Amino acid sequence: MNEVLLEKLQWRYAAKAFDPAKKISPEDWSTLEEALRLTPSSYGLQPWKFYVITDQELKDELIPASYGQTQVGNCSHLLVFTVTTDLSEADIDKYVETSCSVRGTEPESMEFFRNLIIGDVVTGPRSKDIPGWAKLQSYIALGNFMTCAAMLDIDCCPMEGFVQDAYDEALGLKKKGLTTAVVCPAGYRSDDDKYSALEKVRYSKEDLFEYI
Amino acid sequence: MNEVLLEKLQWRYAAKAFDPAKKISPEDWSTLEEALRLTPSSYGLQPWKFYVITDQELKDELIPASYGQTQVGNCSHLLVFTVTTDLSEADIDKYVETSCSVRGTEPESMEFFRNLIIGDVVTGPRSKDIPGWAKLQSYIALGNFMTCAAMLDIDCCPMEGFVQDAYDEALGLKKKGLTTAVVCPAGYRSDDDKYSALEKVRYSKEDLFEYI
Repeated sequence: MNEVLLEKLQWRYAAKAFDPAKKISPEDWSTLEEALRLTPSSYGLQPWKFYVITDQELKDELIPASYGQTQVGNCSHLLVFTVTTDLSEADIDKYVETSCSVRGTEPESMEFFRNLIIGDVVTGPRSKDIPGWAKLQSYIALGNFMTCAAMLDIDCCPMEGFVQDAYDEALGLKKKGLTTAVVCPAGYRSDDDKYSALEKVRYSKEDLFEYI
Repeated sequence: MNEVLLEKLQWRYAAKAFDPAKKISPEDWSTLEEALRLTPSSYGLQPWKFYVITDQELKDELIPASYGQTQVGNCSHLLVFTVTTDLSEADIDKYVETSCSVRGTEPESMEFFRNLIIGDVVTGPRSKDIPGWAKLQSYIALGNFMTCAAMLDIDCCPMEGFVQDAYDEALGLKKKGLTTAVVCPAGYRSDDDKYSALEKVRYSKEDLFEYI
């Protein structure tokens, strides 16, 4: 597995052009969705919603909102990571209920944990910037997604270069209490993408690691 | 690969107790370091340094700075993701030089890209909160790390519950222009960790995905 892992991570790159004729199979996409669903998050709260856009018209419409980056249009699946802009006690209760239902326990046994979470993300320190905190969580999902995609020989391109308001508007996020965190078109690299042949630029282990 | 991927992601969990007798092998750790090194980041800037702590005394010393979470002490390798608190033109030049040296190109050919980056992270919009932006990047590395660890049957525990100043102080980060972003002890789960047997709590695909 060690060799496979590194080979796939070496193979991946930020695809600048996808082959629009090549689509991710339903089986592979379903695996990637399940991988996203399994992503760990702070307190397990999963403060996100994943938008999967395959509608060509909408993908093309989002190119200007992505500073003209055409990957958004020629990808197979445009994945948009959106996050919650606010958390209430009701959100924590929903999590507690889900947890009790999955694990067959009583809400009373989770009272301490419930209050701990509320005291942090609803009324405490992290409540001051829920979108910021939630955005961090979504980047865990992004990291997980990109690695899993590479394992399935699927290309993608993580993108911070987009107009947040334009995405929020196009997806009708505001009224749902969501905002766009990061964007990641996925599909298969175009044979014409000269970037795929470039050597990866990374600092040395000596530069990046400290051992104590 | 699809089945293997989901099986490993199902198997992983946030380990609350590690078996202190079980250490990650040098071969596996080397793979995880290389995986971390290959993590994508915004503009490819890699605004991070990874601290790998195996010294038992320091690990134990960091337990109080982790609100008493003992995983920090009984893990095999305590991985601390630290990020840069500031970016200067010199940092961008270092990146450009590395890129030219790896790809055999001339710095002149990267002038447009260099100015684009500087106009964003050194003098532009993202320069206003470099630690925040860099922290986001480190969460990509965290997501990648956790998935790769699971692929190698290695346990870990992502932790936001720590005192940032105490970690920064213990690692002498301030004078290096770094700060602690997130912490992730890694190793092998203890047989006594009752959390390892719990069902994972995740919302349904219907709850988490929107299709357009």
